[in-house]
Amino acid sequence: MALGRRGYDIRIGPGLLAEAASYKALRGRLVRIVTDANVAPLYLQPLLAALGLSAAEVLVLPAGESQKTWANAETVLDWLLRARLPRDGVLVALGGGVIGDLAGFCAALYQRGIDFVQIPTTLLAQVDSSVGGKTGVNHARGKNMIGAFHQPRAVIADTDVLRTLPPRELAAGLAEVIKCGLLGDAALFAHLERDLDRLLTLDAEVLADAIERCCTLKARVVAADERESLQGGGGPRALLNLGHTFGHAVETHTHYESWLHGEAVGLGLCMAADMSARLGWIAAADAARVTELVRRAGLPVRPPAGMRPQDFMDLMALDKKAAGGRMRLVLLRAVGDAVVSADFDPAALERTLAEFCGAA
Amino acid sequence: MALGRRGYDIRIGPGLLAEAASYKALRGRLVRIVTDANVAPLYLQPLLAALGLSAAEVLVLPAGESQKTWANAETVLDWLLRARLPRDGVLVALGGGVIGDLAGFCAALYQRGIDFVQIPTTLLAQVDSSVGGKTGVNHARGKNMIGAFHQPRAVIADTDVLRTLPPRELAAGLAEVIKCGLLGDAALFAHLERDLDRLLTLDAEVLADAIERCCTLKARVVAADERESLQGGGGPRALLNLGHTFGHAVETHTHYESWLHGEAVGLGLCMAADMSARLGWIAAADAARVTELVRRAGLPVRPPAGMRPQDFMDLMALDKKAAGGRMRLVLLRAVGDAVVSADFDPAALERTLAEFCGAA
Repeated sequence: MALGRRGYDIRIGPGLLAEAASYKALRGRLVRIVTDANVAPLYLQPLLAALGLSAAEVLVLPAGESQKTWANAETVLDWLLRARLPRDGVLVALGGGVIGDLAGFCAALYQRGIDFVQIPTTLLAQVDSSVGGKTGVNHARGKNMIGAFHQPRAVIADTDVLRTLPPRELAAGLAEVIKCGLLGDAALFAHLERDLDRLLTLDAEVLADAIERCCTLKARVVAADERESLQGGGGPRALLNLGHTFGHAVETHTHYESWLHGEAVGLGLCMAADMSARLGWIAAADAARVTELVRRAGLPVRPPAGMRPQDFMDLMALDKKAAGGRMRLVLLRAVGDAVVSADFDPAALERTLAEFCGAA
Repeated sequence: MALGRRGYDIRIGPGLLAEAASYKALRGRLVRIVTDANVAPLYLQPLLAALGLSAAEVLVLPAGESQKTWANAETVLDWLLRARLPRDGVLVALGGGVIGDLAGFCAALYQRGIDFVQIPTTLLAQVDSSVGGKTGVNHARGKNMIGAFHQPRAVIADTDVLRTLPPRELAAGLAEVIKCGLLGDAALFAHLERDLDRLLTLDAEVLADAIERCCTLKARVVAADERESLQGGGGPRALLNLGHTFGHAVETHTHYESWLHGEAVGLGLCMAADMSARLGWIAAADAARVTELVRRAGLPVRPPAGMRPQDFMDLMALDKKAAGGRMRLVLLRAVGDAVVSADFDPAALERTLAEFCGAA
């Protein structure tokens, strides 16, 4: 990935966990590992064996998005300080997006920044959260409202680990894959429509191709706008938030407990496509293709029961995409072509919310 | 200050607080102010009047180094989230180094980074902590162990506000001024030996000259090594830590409660000079000049009662200057010429600690 002096390796493929010691970012370094209680029984021992480490060098946190908190960041930092990890040590995140975001945040802050390495163990983390350097924790008033930009030194995406992923989490990861196709890779979107069943059964070839296309797309977008600072936050990097403003509202409304991030994003893609069609920017048939693909992936296409249009409006207004008080959304001009816009007819948003929430 | 696209204005002089609205970084922006209970009664109203703001846009924290905590960072972030400050808002730090470091840390993390402006109200903050972009909080296991690099958009150093500074805090600020002379400006050191009495009575001309020399020196050093990343953290920026490894040990030992940061640094300068003389790098007479100037400034030149050499060793080993397990110190080759070194005879350190702690 090209980010000047901070460029780093992204490797994708089977069997990479066992080769962890071959990475320059890990060889001969003092290493600490953060993981969670779901991942530890499956992949911690192979990683410790590969790196010649003991369990004393690992912190195992409870699993789940509700753990991505300010309090847990303090827990990790306390542990690093007790261990007296020096400034030239390395922190490894072994887990999904929650562990990656939380450990990356702590690596950004510990002694004002130490190296870290991402070993993503979910499809969602492999195609999305492990690449790009966004780290952070959630807050009751919004997801990822507290964070830092901190690029990993390496990303090790071992596709073998996806075999133990629960079907619901695989589907959640597919939401981000569909997003990548929708926002900037029409060929990927077409591949997904054709090969979704093979992806759902973890066909190695289709899987590696999809992950690589997503990482390539994300790396290209991030290299153009690392800190989402261009055009007041409405530049290239903001395109990656397609579906996320709707999705974050759902996650916040449900306190990050009942919906997986990818599930919320999948719904958000349907809502963004629906709204784009109501604006006349894409055909109604294209919006229907989006909903159909999200549904085939096994993802929800309706908001949680009882969530009202006003709930969306209140939570979306706080979202980071709101600039100078004006709501900014990522919308579609075509399948494979997204645009960041604050210049849309608010009536289209209202109609989309009414339609999806089942109101009149 | 020259830091590429992130360069910013440092203004030094009388009456600047009343001109706050003239700063581009503040004009026409949504502004929130963090200050403390000592500063608020003195300078908050003039600043609010200058910016046309109300008290509702201010968070007043208790005063003191013991407030620079992870918990208070959460308090500030919660407040910003409740206020729904947008990503293009500005956070102003009105206060000394504690408020500047804490508010800067929160500005670095809020929505992954918003603009902030430093209005330092102590001599120490004006000559040191407000310039250079280091932000953070303390931890029971070490000072500034958790933090981020985040440059302010502007630094407004109004010298009029120093008139209300307690003498003890003025002296603490002078420690950093002496440090600047010692590490890179022999002329400043000589000026201080000649004009210290005028500085202690806040002679405007001598004061502005000393602050400007310190800021210029610091800006030059920071521009060469913004993130203290060169030479494994032992590059140019580390020189600014002259006296700090000894000083941080004192502050940690006393739980940041009884010693001011500048007091600890003043003692640290004496100890670094003493050790440099024991190594034969400077003359004993030069070490004596340092101790004499620190003493004349009204600063302590002995560690707190009961602090033992081993206490220093334990706490200094954890200091950020420790690289790969080896202790690194900033020492002197001459008055006005400091060097970062891990290559020193440890017996010299032991003798300095024994001498200052009053052991055999």
